[in-house]
Amino acid sequence: MLIILLGKKATSKTSLTISKTSYHKVFMAKKKIASKKATPKKKSPARKKINKRKAKQHVYFFGGNKADGDGSQKALLGGKGANLSEMSRIGLPVPAGMAITTEVCTYYYANKKTYPKTLDNEIKTNIAKIEKVMGKKFGDLKNPLLLSVRSGARESMPGMMDTILNLGINDEIVESLSAKTGNSKFAWDSYRRFLQMYGSVVMGVDAHEGEHHDPYEVILDKAKAKAKVTDDSGLEESDLRWVVAEFKKLIKKRSGEAFPEDPMAQLYGSINAVFNSWNNDRAKVYRAKYGIPAEWGTAVNVQAMVFGNTGKTSGTGVAFTRDPATGENVFYGEYLIDAQGEDVVAGVRTPKPIAKMVKDLPKSHRELLKVRKILEKHFRDVQDVEFTIEEGKLWMLQTRNGKRTGFAAVNIALDMVKERLITRNEAILRIPAEDLSHLLAPIFDLATERKATKIGSGLPAGPGAASGKIYFSAEDSVKAASKGESVILVRQATSPEDLRGMIAADGILTTEGGASSHAALVARQMGKVCVCGAHGMTIDYGKKTLSGNGETLKEGDALSLNGFVGNVYKGTIKSSPSQVIQGLIENKAAGKRSDTYKKFMELMSWTDKLRKLGVRTNSDTPEQVEQAIKFGAEGIGLTRAEHMFFEGNRIDSVREMILADDDAGRAKALTKIKKFMKKDFIGIFKSLAGRPATIRLLDPPLHEFIGTMDAVQKKDLSKKIGMSASAITKRVHALHEENPMLGHRGCRLGISYPAVTATQVEAILEAAAVVQAKGTKVLPEIMVPLVAYARELELQKQVIDETAASVRKKLGLKKSQLKYTVGTMIEIPRAAITADKVAEHAEFFSFGTNDLTQTGLGLSRDDSSSFLPTYQDAEVLSNNPFAGLDQEGVGQLVEMGVRGGRSTKPNLKIGICGEHGGDSDSVKFFHRTGLNYVSCSPFRIPVARLAAAQAVLEERGQSRSEIS
Amino acid sequence: MLIILLGKKATSKTSLTISKTSYHKVFMAKKKIASKKATPKKKSPARKKINKRKAKQHVYFFGGNKADGDGSQKALLGGKGANLSEMSRIGLPVPAGMAITTEVCTYYYANKKTYPKTLDNEIKTNIAKIEKVMGKKFGDLKNPLLLSVRSGARESMPGMMDTILNLGINDEIVESLSAKTGNSKFAWDSYRRFLQMYGSVVMGVDAHEGEHHDPYEVILDKAKAKAKVTDDSGLEESDLRWVVAEFKKLIKKRSGEAFPEDPMAQLYGSINAVFNSWNNDRAKVYRAKYGIPAEWGTAVNVQAMVFGNTGKTSGTGVAFTRDPATGENVFYGEYLIDAQGEDVVAGVRTPKPIAKMVKDLPKSHRELLKVRKILEKHFRDVQDVEFTIEEGKLWMLQTRNGKRTGFAAVNIALDMVKERLITRNEAILRIPAEDLSHLLAPIFDLATERKATKIGSGLPAGPGAASGKIYFSAEDSVKAASKGESVILVRQATSPEDLRGMIAADGILTTEGGASSHAALVARQMGKVCVCGAHGMTIDYGKKTLSGNGETLKEGDALSLNGFVGNVYKGTIKSSPSQVIQGLIENKAAGKRSDTYKKFMELMSWTDKLRKLGVRTNSDTPEQVEQAIKFGAEGIGLTRAEHMFFEGNRIDSVREMILADDDAGRAKALTKIKKFMKKDFIGIFKSLAGRPATIRLLDPPLHEFIGTMDAVQKKDLSKKIGMSASAITKRVHALHEENPMLGHRGCRLGISYPAVTATQVEAILEAAAVVQAKGTKVLPEIMVPLVAYARELELQKQVIDETAASVRKKLGLKKSQLKYTVGTMIEIPRAAITADKVAEHAEFFSFGTNDLTQTGLGLSRDDSSSFLPTYQDAEVLSNNPFAGLDQEGVGQLVEMGVRGGRSTKPNLKIGICGEHGGDSDSVKFFHRTGLNYVSCSPFRIPVARLAAAQAVLEERGQSRSEIS
Repeated sequence: MLIILLGKKATSKTSLTISKTSYHKVFMAKKKIASKKATPKKKSPARKKINKRKAKQHVYFFGGNKADGDGSQKALLGGKGANLSEMSRIGLPVPAGMAITTEVCTYYYANKKTYPKTLDNEIKTNIAKIEKVMGKKFGDLKNPLLLSVRSGARESMPGMMDTILNLGINDEIVESLSAKTGNSKFAWDSYRRFLQMYGSVVMGVDAHEGEHHDPYEVILDKAKAKAKVTDDSGLEESDLRWVVAEFKKLIKKRSGEAFPEDPMAQLYGSINAVFNSWNNDRAKVYRAKYGIPAEWGTAVNVQAMVFGNTGKTSGTGVAFTRDPATGENVFYGEYLIDAQGEDVVAGVRTPKPIAKMVKDLPKSHRELLKVRKILEKHFRDVQDVEFTIEEGKLWMLQTRNGKRTGFAAVNIALDMVKERLITRNEAILRIPAEDLSHLLAPIFDLATERKATKIGSGLPAGPGAASGKIYFSAEDSVKAASKGESVILVRQATSPEDLRGMIAADGILTTEGGASSHAALVARQMGKVCVCGAHGMTIDYGKKTLSGNGETLKEGDALSLNGFVGNVYKGTIKSSPSQVIQGLIENKAAGKRSDTYKKFMELMSWTDKLRKLGVRTNSDTPEQVEQAIKFGAEGIGLTRAEHMFFEGNRIDSVREMILADDDAGRAKALTKIKKFMKKDFIGIFKSLAGRPATIRLLDPPLHEFIGTMDAVQKKDLSKKIGMSASAITKRVHALHEENPMLGHRGCRLGISYPAVTATQVEAILEAAAVVQAKGTKVLPEIMVPLVAYARELELQKQVIDETAASVRKKLGLKKSQLKYTVGTMIEIPRAAITADKVAEHAEFFSFGTNDLTQTGLGLSRDDSSSFLPTYQDAEVLSNNPFAGLDQEGVGQLVEMGVRGGRSTKPNLKIGICGEHGGDSDSVKFFHRTGLNYVSCSPFRIPVARLAAAQAVLEERGQSRSEIS
Repeated sequence: MLIILLGKKATSKTSLTISKTSYHKVFMAKKKIASKKATPKKKSPARKKINKRKAKQHVYFFGGNKADGDGSQKALLGGKGANLSEMSRIGLPVPAGMAITTEVCTYYYANKKTYPKTLDNEIKTNIAKIEKVMGKKFGDLKNPLLLSVRSGARESMPGMMDTILNLGINDEIVESLSAKTGNSKFAWDSYRRFLQMYGSVVMGVDAHEGEHHDPYEVILDKAKAKAKVTDDSGLEESDLRWVVAEFKKLIKKRSGEAFPEDPMAQLYGSINAVFNSWNNDRAKVYRAKYGIPAEWGTAVNVQAMVFGNTGKTSGTGVAFTRDPATGENVFYGEYLIDAQGEDVVAGVRTPKPIAKMVKDLPKSHRELLKVRKILEKHFRDVQDVEFTIEEGKLWMLQTRNGKRTGFAAVNIALDMVKERLITRNEAILRIPAEDLSHLLAPIFDLATERKATKIGSGLPAGPGAASGKIYFSAEDSVKAASKGESVILVRQATSPEDLRGMIAADGILTTEGGASSHAALVARQMGKVCVCGAHGMTIDYGKKTLSGNGETLKEGDALSLNGFVGNVYKGTIKSSPSQVIQGLIENKAAGKRSDTYKKFMELMSWTDKLRKLGVRTNSDTPEQVEQAIKFGAEGIGLTRAEHMFFEGNRIDSVREMILADDDAGRAKALTKIKKFMKKDFIGIFKSLAGRPATIRLLDPPLHEFIGTMDAVQKKDLSKKIGMSASAITKRVHALHEENPMLGHRGCRLGISYPAVTATQVEAILEAAAVVQAKGTKVLPEIMVPLVAYARELELQKQVIDETAASVRKKLGLKKSQLKYTVGTMIEIPRAAITADKVAEHAEFFSFGTNDLTQTGLGLSRDDSSSFLPTYQDAEVLSNNPFAGLDQEGVGQLVEMGVRGGRSTKPNLKIGICGEHGGDSDSVKFFHRTGLNYVSCSPFRIPVARLAAAQAVLEERGQSRSEIS
């Protein structure tokens, strides 16, 4: 019946025992469909021949130092299959096998879970090849070949899909295996392992819902009790015979079907199961998380089994060709004697470090070191390998590029350049740009961290390590920090009012909100350690306590945050700034001497030679600007007028301005505001030392500055500005908006109150004049936010130009002596769509991709965290659109904006200053779109520089390596 | 100096008295610029000749039965100039004059308020022509010609720009005028009128700020006191001489400049003033309101003065060739004997109805009747004329198409078709589609309304007339209405919770919010009379009072609303449904017999033959649907699932569903909701009688259903659903969103809670099955809202299809026995941009232009009313983008959506169901964009039908009339 499905007549051999098992239903369906089909049109013999010759190859053999495929065919053969083929090609000892291609997987899902007609034949042919190379026969009673069936997608998805080992045993074969190996315990143990895997994975016999114990383990426990042993390995042949019989009964009873004795049926059942596991829930969630498209599919690898569990001269292990945590050039791994692969992973026995093999298995160790060299030389990258030693013979079961930390990525790439294994450009492409931020963050001592008490976890929103005393308000945090305490600010969620507290704190913990919450965004910009949305933890603001995992901490108690992974620990763990920060920002000799610092600096110098995109910074203070410049910022891409408003008592003047109900009252308050704005701009311009600065005029809804006042604050303000508390309340109420993000903000404020714009421009230009007078060049680029209509920009430009004229007049300066440009944020779809018209009034554009994402997707950044996880699970989104640009949708608006703007002004300078300016994939998109620069928070600048360089190489068609 | 400006050498005549007046500064500027220019390149003589021949004509003469221009040149000559030219051409008695073109106005503003070089020459030449025709000479001492200078834009902007009359008098000429006419009082009165106008308009001498009395009137009052008369007309020559002298002193003192005695200087000063007045604040506001582009500019008409104030055989008047209020075919107007034009308008003397002229001026009356016939025959439309009779001679001073009410527009157009003056297509183009709604609204008795006490006014948000007792809450309104009272619901603003009250009320008054507020939109949909944003009025909910204009009304007091104009009256004014409603909706014989009803029905039948766009309705109840069908709806374009939720106690179940914190709780509540939804859909499907229905699944943010509960309601609900009040409060808090419009709503809810979608689909399809079983065809089109990603639609379509399959199975129906289609709203920019992908899963699109406008412009409908007025004043917007589609911006998204959708499915059915579906300009846009249908509220359907027909004619290049 199986064979009918696969397009051939049934033979007695394969149709014997397979009849009612559920996994064959699809075959029945296929048969029906096939029988319904009309006779195909006759083709001329010549044509037929060509078709036959060109018939697609679905199965690729490897083994015996040969292979149909090679390492470059990851898309077709999966990562595992391609690398097994490559290893076989270059003469490494690989158990023979075959890769069934990912195209078969795609076909399977596109055709109601059926297979191409020719597949069956190809599988049979390749089994014959495997048999020949391994000198054993599948299903043979004398010298039986056992097989493994494993998944293998283009990108590794560890543990997500199914695996079946020891396939090809039945009641007869187990006896011959026993006889042949002279190891009946091994034979029966292999059989029970196979039954356990096949029963659960292929036949779906698992713990029932509500059943607390795995039914196979229950049987094993019974056997052990009967045999009076505590360990599985204590079971002897007779015990295992009983276990096998019980397993078979269990499977029959629960599935209603007998375990298939026929090896070919076992094989097809297993292949089905692996293809099906491509779409199990685990795999889907993983794909959504890592942005792996469902249409890639998985390959299936069918490979001869080799056994590390046949005695003291056998064993199994995993290794990295270099240390994946540090990048150090040492062989790194572990092994177990007399064990199968899963024993290493399962953690029942403690594996030994690989160096100890010198004693246990000296010959194999020597071989392994040789293999290590060959692999690195051939794949020109760190390899993550699995191996088995069967009675002294080394077999390589897998190799793949090793995952590594950001530290290791930099170290390895730059070492390999020195070793002449790879080129500089390859090194640039090898380092995931995002991981570069790991080099900037403070780090815990690993050993100490492992001993600490974990009391919660959340999203890793700001990489790094921080310990300090907890405080529950910005005020308390500031107070404690001023006493020299290290502070962890703990809030349910943060708001702009918490800014001073966040600045004072070493780390920030929130129990609500996601990766795009205020806390996450600000922490990212400030380079603060941050764990956000630690949902299992609770805060009692009244009692000033934080609880989690049964522990309750009071104000002032010590807490530690690991912002790399999102862990929250009770107590203090010692941390220190990374060597890069020590050298680059703190200017410490120790940091500068470090290897990581030197490599980081060298890498950055390479990227700067390559990249075409400029990199600027989003910074609001002179300190941030100075830091950003050290990170490589070439200017400011975004400095926010309103971020100056929260410092000290400034907010009072801002509130006075907002609450004023006439122009005179507003003018009075504006005078105060101008004074501190001017002071800040002087600081910023000085820090920039001649670099350009894009300054965005007041953007947020007014309510944001006044909506958060409580009764006490209102009373206090009432005294300060001489307005009754009830009048304040009334005005606050009047300014309340249903959807403030779409409300009276940005240039809309400037058009309603031109004096607000004029004041800011005065502050900017007067500050520019002060700094210029001291010999420092100043290039203010005044940016009008939230423009939807060209006319809005035209009107605001009039105000700016008129104000500039009056400032110049007042200061006695000529036009050439006080220069500035006027441009706009493109952050509303209408502005992008009508960019040709907007450009008539603009000297530059800067895409505000945060707002453009909000409006383009109709999605509030603040509110979407409640359903974005559902969206990722449902594969609507593969990432958070506020972190990585939605290139397909919002990206088109960016392209329209660039096209429109440059159609009016071919040389229009265009940048981007949304959060996406520091996201590596987005940076590459902006490069392709032809932007002039990206702007991001200081700590993201190295990421942007590297991504910008990678974009150039990718545009040239270069990949991270020619082979792997 | 003036002449230098205009490109010629100064002559002693014109340069005599003009030296320091401010309005000549521009001329100085021009001179400087001219002197800076390099010598122009030499051109060959031939070339020069061609240029000369082609030199632009800036001035167009009319008079003496001739004219340079004609009635078709409104864009160039302005409406007034073009029609004066046309009248002159067809032999009507028009005082000679010239039109200075709108291109000169454009030139003036584009060139720093200077004029084309050749203009001066052209003006002089044309003055000579005027002199010749009129037999008088400008500035002549013997037989002086006086001139008027008036604005004249392409479209009439009554009273917005400046006018100067009696120009060309000075101290010498007044004497000769006096001698020539033998009427010294007339001569001196003309002089003082001229001084008053020239002083104020041209020289800017007006009341100071803070000065309460007009300084000219102060002098006139002194003169009257001295002369002991009460009326201006009581002043004799000597008094007027004193007035003239005082006026001159006043002008000199306040402006620092002497009044120019030179007639040519007077003329140029006046021309400047009129061009300048194109950009005065009044004119800008008017243009913004009526969507007149600033670049059109105004023409200036310089015309010989004729005088209706020279005695008993003189007079002046205004008239319409038919009654502009009713459309009746009678000559309609009024006149004054011995008066100038402005006396009619000023209202100091009461004019007589035109019929009385038979007695007073029988010859002129006969002439006028002849002119009326000629005008109507020639212009083929109702004309609004101004005339003056100077000593028995009739002069026509203006003609233009008469403004008319919606009633008159329909009556006149259909009468003229009968009279064979115009074609049916012209009739269709003549009726402003928007005005058609006037025919549907209830009306007050005009005489009674005029006597009523006006206590406030607001925006006319729902046309019609309504009287009733005032109530301040929905509950009280419902209660009162159930007792048979007529109710006016008075609220600061309305929300969805007020819906029952709004349904119960005859009229709705709000003191806050604009034309796009909830009240306005719902009133429009329900066809309720509504005045909204009556800002001068105040509500005290505690005392239940409404105050305005010094009056205070209590609950239950009578109030009347005129929703055509926005007036609010104390007391009851009798109103009745329009004849069209009586005939069409109420099926009353009296209505059906009426002429208006017959004409309306005939007009509608014409539009239906022409239009290509389908017209559907946005309706939520069977009653609305039935009404809509009578208005011509061809199906439902939008019925909102959630609008069923507010009726009766249904909201409790909805709240229970929302507050449930698990699937089981949700399922329980959903069962209740399904029951009433099914009942409603049965009603709607029955009413549709086989027409299609687009049903939008639950769209608004959940918080909208629960956010408005007060403590009492929460307690009440707590009892009903067995959830603690504190738990309710907590959940309400958790569901609160910062920007609900961009939050967890639309398909996002359906994806988070598929059961919510499934329940709605069950209700729809089970209802369809019930109605079908009774022999009525049902065509449900299930519409998924707020899709941004194609995958969202794909997922919701899966839920819908699976639910449908289970409903069919339950009911034992085949696929062909229970049909439906699945489509989506295009209301998020991303969906429009990626419409090709979205279309893969859609069987239809419907543009949700309300949300598409909100997101496309980044503009909240609820919040924008606070600054939209500023935006209109600043000419950012010419209309409210939520009422009329922003064709340039949002329109491009609609075009992208159509293009994308049809690129995937060439025959994709596409409609629009936003508010814009009932806006005539937007309807025309949708026709051009290739949509299949528009959908709007029932009362807007006739408007949409007419606009759709007009769109077809306009596409063919037809205009409302070949001549005018």
